[in-house]
Amino acid sequence: MCQNHGVAYIKPGVVEVQSIDYPKLALGDRKCHHGVILQIVSTNICGSDQHMVRGRTTAPAGLVLGHEITGLVIEAGRDVEFIKEGDLVSVPFNIACGRCRNCKVGQTGICLNVNPARPGAAYGYVDMGGWVGGQAEYVMVPYADFNLLKFPDKDQAMAKIRDLTLLSDIFPTGYHGAVMAGVGPGSIVYVAGAGPVGLACAASCHLLGAAVVIVGDMIPERLEQAKSFGCETIDLRNEASLADQIAAIIGVPEVDSAVDCVGFEARGHGADAATEQPATVLNAAMTITRAGGAIGIPGLYVTGDPGASTEAAKEGNLNIRIGLGWAKSHSFYTGQCPVMKYHRQLMNAILYDKIQIAKAVNVEVISLDKAPKGYQDFDKGAAKKFVIDPHGMIPN
Amino acid sequence: MCQNHGVAYIKPGVVEVQSIDYPKLALGDRKCHHGVILQIVSTNICGSDQHMVRGRTTAPAGLVLGHEITGLVIEAGRDVEFIKEGDLVSVPFNIACGRCRNCKVGQTGICLNVNPARPGAAYGYVDMGGWVGGQAEYVMVPYADFNLLKFPDKDQAMAKIRDLTLLSDIFPTGYHGAVMAGVGPGSIVYVAGAGPVGLACAASCHLLGAAVVIVGDMIPERLEQAKSFGCETIDLRNEASLADQIAAIIGVPEVDSAVDCVGFEARGHGADAATEQPATVLNAAMTITRAGGAIGIPGLYVTGDPGASTEAAKEGNLNIRIGLGWAKSHSFYTGQCPVMKYHRQLMNAILYDKIQIAKAVNVEVISLDKAPKGYQDFDKGAAKKFVIDPHGMIPN
Amino acid sequence: MCQNHGVAYIKPGVVEVQSIDYPKLALGDRKCHHGVILQIVSTNICGSDQHMVRGRTTAPAGLVLGHEITGLVIEAGRDVEFIKEGDLVSVPFNIACGRCRNCKVGQTGICLNVNPARPGAAYGYVDMGGWVGGQAEYVMVPYADFNLLKFPDKDQAMAKIRDLTLLSDIFPTGYHGAVMAGVGPGSIVYVAGAGPVGLACAASCHLLGAAVVIVGDMIPERLEQAKSFGCETIDLRNEASLADQIAAIIGVPEVDSAVDCVGFEARGHGADAATEQPATVLNAAMTITRAGGAIGIPGLYVTGDPGASTEAAKEGNLNIRIGLGWAKSHSFYTGQCPVMKYHRQLMNAILYDKIQIAKAVNVEVISLDKAPKGYQDFDKGAAKKFVIDPHGMIPN
Amino acid sequence: MCQNHGVAYIKPGVVEVQSIDYPKLALGDRKCHHGVILQIVSTNICGSDQHMVRGRTTAPAGLVLGHEITGLVIEAGRDVEFIKEGDLVSVPFNIACGRCRNCKVGQTGICLNVNPARPGAAYGYVDMGGWVGGQAEYVMVPYADFNLLKFPDKDQAMAKIRDLTLLSDIFPTGYHGAVMAGVGPGSIVYVAGAGPVGLACAASCHLLGAAVVIVGDMIPERLEQAKSFGCETIDLRNEASLADQIAAIIGVPEVDSAVDCVGFEARGHGADAATEQPATVLNAAMTITRAGGAIGIPGLYVTGDPGASTEAAKEGNLNIRIGLGWAKSHSFYTGQCPVMKYHRQLMNAILYDKIQIAKAVNVEVISLDKAPKGYQDFDKGAAKKFVIDPHGMIPN
Repeated sequence: MCQNHGVAYIKPGVVEVQSIDYPKLALGDRKCHHGVILQIVSTNICGSDQHMVRGRTTAPAGLVLGHEITGLVIEAGRDVEFIKEGDLVSVPFNIACGRCRNCKVGQTGICLNVNPARPGAAYGYVDMGGWVGGQAEYVMVPYADFNLLKFPDKDQAMAKIRDLTLLSDIFPTGYHGAVMAGVGPGSIVYVAGAGPVGLACAASCHLLGAAVVIVGDMIPERLEQAKSFGCETIDLRNEASLADQIAAIIGVPEVDSAVDCVGFEARGHGADAATEQPATVLNAAMTITRAGGAIGIPGLYVTGDPGASTEAAKEGNLNIRIGLGWAKSHSFYTGQCPVMKYHRQLMNAILYDKIQIAKAVNVEVISLDKAPKGYQDFDKGAAKKFVIDPHGMIPN
Repeated sequence: MCQNHGVAYIKPGVVEVQSIDYPKLALGDRKCHHGVILQIVSTNICGSDQHMVRGRTTAPAGLVLGHEITGLVIEAGRDVEFIKEGDLVSVPFNIACGRCRNCKVGQTGICLNVNPARPGAAYGYVDMGGWVGGQAEYVMVPYADFNLLKFPDKDQAMAKIRDLTLLSDIFPTGYHGAVMAGVGPGSIVYVAGAGPVGLACAASCHLLGAAVVIVGDMIPERLEQAKSFGCETIDLRNEASLADQIAAIIGVPEVDSAVDCVGFEARGHGADAATEQPATVLNAAMTITRAGGAIGIPGLYVTGDPGASTEAAKEGNLNIRIGLGWAKSHSFYTGQCPVMKYHRQLMNAILYDKIQIAKAVNVEVISLDKAPKGYQDFDKGAAKKFVIDPHGMIPN
Repeated sequence: MCQNHGVAYIKPGVVEVQSIDYPKLALGDRKCHHGVILQIVSTNICGSDQHMVRGRTTAPAGLVLGHEITGLVIEAGRDVEFIKEGDLVSVPFNIACGRCRNCKVGQTGICLNVNPARPGAAYGYVDMGGWVGGQAEYVMVPYADFNLLKFPDKDQAMAKIRDLTLLSDIFPTGYHGAVMAGVGPGSIVYVAGAGPVGLACAASCHLLGAAVVIVGDMIPERLEQAKSFGCETIDLRNEASLADQIAAIIGVPEVDSAVDCVGFEARGHGADAATEQPATVLNAAMTITRAGGAIGIPGLYVTGDPGASTEAAKEGNLNIRIGLGWAKSHSFYTGQCPVMKYHRQLMNAILYDKIQIAKAVNVEVISLDKAPKGYQDFDKGAAKKFVIDPHGMIPN
Repeated sequence: MCQNHGVAYIKPGVVEVQSIDYPKLALGDRKCHHGVILQIVSTNICGSDQHMVRGRTTAPAGLVLGHEITGLVIEAGRDVEFIKEGDLVSVPFNIACGRCRNCKVGQTGICLNVNPARPGAAYGYVDMGGWVGGQAEYVMVPYADFNLLKFPDKDQAMAKIRDLTLLSDIFPTGYHGAVMAGVGPGSIVYVAGAGPVGLACAASCHLLGAAVVIVGDMIPERLEQAKSFGCETIDLRNEASLADQIAAIIGVPEVDSAVDCVGFEARGHGADAATEQPATVLNAAMTITRAGGAIGIPGLYVTGDPGASTEAAKEGNLNIRIGLGWAKSHSFYTGQCPVMKYHRQLMNAILYDKIQIAKAVNVEVISLDKAPKGYQDFDKGAAKKFVIDPHGMIPN
């Protein structure tokens, strides 16, 4: 049990499965008696991993990737009181101490005690505190009593593991975007992006009671995937404006709420579809959201982007038509989803069959060896969510 | 009673008091049987009027200015049921029908029925529906039953008219900024701008229970005014960074909440203080607001600014460091204040002596003839709020 | 068109269809130029009508009943601006002026200007302002611009009229109970009562994303109806305690939220099922709602109940185990549903097929002549919602 | 340092200072490596202690009292990471694990892991988990990283210790009542009870911006105390009804919000002032709160009251006029205040001189020996808040 393998970032475009250290209840000199060691049952490839793998960040070679983790507790630190060996648990991607001012009010995405560089941390991510990633066989989770969500029944959970594995990040993240955008029963919503977060957001809008969910993307397979669970779709490569395409669906060119599930690596719409235009989605959202509406922004915007095309954009400084948003009294909600705020309720929604989230995002289970291939396919726009099964524990 | 005089915009830098039409219960062909005619008791010069007077908008020559109105009802349309002749009333600057989807949920700043061009209207303002302004002797107020706030006792109200006159715009506007920024008991807040809205916001922060209110500006007289009612102040012309100046006051370089009471005509900080830098305030707000904080933006950002220095800025498109806001999980609230949401409660705060808002913004009462001089002094940065008294009704 | 017939209360247990006055744009001496005359398309019998018909109120003989109204505008008062002849509209059962302090904040259930006796009014209801009821061919609706919800497309609306007719009361009322109780995605909820409001509440819980909806009643047909759309059910005549029956379903004896859709005419549970025990539902709700949970109370409690079994209960004074609620930090939400707060969004949910509310409450369309029979069947516990079609306009 | 003395409940009407065990990092067999030992700097006598001392509970003889604790950390368990020896800290009276479902959403008053009998625990209180009380020289505080609020500067804090000592319970408790009742800028509020919680509530209403705060009680000294910081007062022994007395102050017989700071040991109003009438305050609150208002209930209601005058009341079952509340669409908020939700912000309000809370509640510092006398005086209605200074550390 003292061996471990994980997916490491090597250089732009390249990841490898390597032998890595078996986890300790520590991060460098920092003791983690409050932590547990997990045997990883499932661990997903995330779109935000791709930013690193594409070389759009300062991630160092050798970084072990992976922040979407579900696992079995096989060792618990001496200070862990309520989580037990044998528990099957979901790990929120944001690491949180449970003891700081922000954690106490549920803002676990900006915990003050887990990253010396800035508020907020995550597993296996550049600038996010140095915690080891979980696209691996084993991983250490600190502050286990606080962070972990225990599934009430292991057999029941294993039978739905393809859905439950999405509780560590993209289901809550998409849901958070919808909630921030004010989505509720009867809402008419535009979701920008039909990658896994966009699809999870669209499915969350349905769960929240939305009347119409319109998803925009440029990849036909992803739009098909959105259609498969009842969304309306818009192909952003079309010449017609986004507003006109929305009007063709609902009769008016504006929606109640918009969610940006794309972030800074956005490309232009229509004729500009080939070019990266990092503020396109935000500006489009203001155009097509009605006055008084809210815009949720779970899509990532960064403070440093070495690959950006302008000096300003390299610092995360974008051309935003704020005058339009102001005239329409818009509000804007940014930042990492605080997963813990939502995961228990979303777990219930899965366990009681209120949502088929794995189907919505098209989960495909792969072995750890196949992770590099998964990264490649995902980068090409596969309409799939790759879930790594490092120990072959996931039933067919 | 059939004569009327008002302040008209003539050309950049010039306003004049002219003879204007006595108001009718109509706007062009649109009948306003739901309206009333007011004898104006007080009407204030607003910083947003200055955008027009400085030539930063497409306001036409002859536009009668004025959207901060308090008055006596002297005629009521046939459909007015609850407001009576003789009532002394405060007029919210946003004109609202009380019958559309937005009004029904309190978003009176974006009423759908009072401006054919876009949601939202105001008196005497470019692009705001063509309603005649109220820096005049008489004005018509539509949808009077819905819009007007009646003061419970006329004598009591006249004795506090310098305070109550601020209910039509800047007190609620400053308060709205504070509320949107999440200010409450114990908050530590930064208010950008010590003009009348900034000062009203700072006083509102105190009313809301804030522990520390820090106001930044470049005009020493305005900062003195802020100090006079218990604010900490920062001179933005200083070379020290805003963050360092904040740390010098509270020990850390970040506040809980920030309110932008400046808007698009902002100048740079420190060495850049001479140059217009329209996104300075927003970018500064993200820098000095702690992770998880909210940023209220009552300061005006426009969709068209003919006087802007770049093509993008002419369309209200600014360089905003959204990557930083995202990393800190900030939320942003824009738009006109929906005055009706707040004016009744703020009236109570005035009537029961919980706040000295006229003193905080340094009200100076002037005659209608002196309005052009008031515009000039205000444009030069006078630390005053000019209140026009067209009928000489305001007691000394 | 000057004839009219309506359902009148005669004496306990008896209602009759009578010839009644054709409506005027007035209520006694009060002019209603802001009102419209509706040709009634559908008008539903409500459980709260039964309180009057059973003689549990001071309703006078001859009172025309009916507050759940949907109709076509056939005449508009001179002050009506946005509603037009020919519009097909839903009428919220609460009559509201749109101009008072309460209406302005969305509390249309307690409007201050429509009932001299107390805040709040309704059509055809004792102590509710004297407005004429709408179980009739024609009715007058005051403040039409404010009150009415216009359906966007008449043909589309007529095709779903069995669902849309429920927007005037029970769908929003059940939904309000759920919202007040904090129901959202993943919630586990107990709904007391499987009458039409209870069923509408249960369906609303599903719309809101609840994971488990448990409905309790004593009438097997009503419980079957609840089962038909995915609810769990509990027969309150069983000897097992409610807590035990809940535990048998979800594994623990407590739910997240409870909604009282019964009100003061409640009977005891289990062995006490034959006796009226007016606080049974509230006390049961405290017993089975987990600490920190909320209890929504759309079920009616009255200030005067001539038929009550104790002197205290005759004044609406009941034996409530508040000590238990306090120990569990419960919160309690009472009162009429402010229909306007919800009807637009719920209309969207119907029009876009997010909910089958007519099926959930088992709508049965009857002619006006059959209204007395409908009252009788409903009083006997028919698992049906009776919708009167006075002009034979509802398609099969 | 291994000696300890504390205030113990002996029998109805009698408390004694006894030698008690020096605290261990444990509660019986339960290890508390997450806890700290505090040298107690201040510890207050609370009105809820009086319920026990009057014999109105099942508290056993020998129970060490005291749940309002401020202290210096003199020993930290091995699992304590962020609190250090030498820290000066405020202890919320509710004991909370920081790891359960309720704590994670801020409901620390109903923590699931600290009391086997029911959700929620406190120091030195019957049925609250068996944790040793802190009217003593030393006490153990479990889950120290989560529970404790560290004062930023010890000298500054000691200079304001009379105010800061109130953060452990009554200041947040009174504030919570006000917040639950919807108090904000411009509110008109009735606070029932001028004991320390009532006075803290009244002062909190002012901090929240209330326009008028009316306090009712039967003890003239307490009403004088309320007047001393700007409250209006009502003597409940007067013959005039509460509604009439309110109308005499504000012109109308209803307020926006009411807070019950009395609880179940209430006496009747006016002529009934000599008799215990446990639901008087709740029923009065419904009478004088306007339709749509909210009622905060920080006053204690219990599930078992051996001293009650009726069988129903012995089980916490009271005669509540719920029909009236329902007709007025009231909402009701019960339960322990979750202190942690508020204490940081209220600390700021104290440290930056926004509130003089010690003065408002009339703090009197006494030695530990004088505690029995303090209990007696308090029980007689002294308009004082007794703060015990067990080590003589509080400066004059």
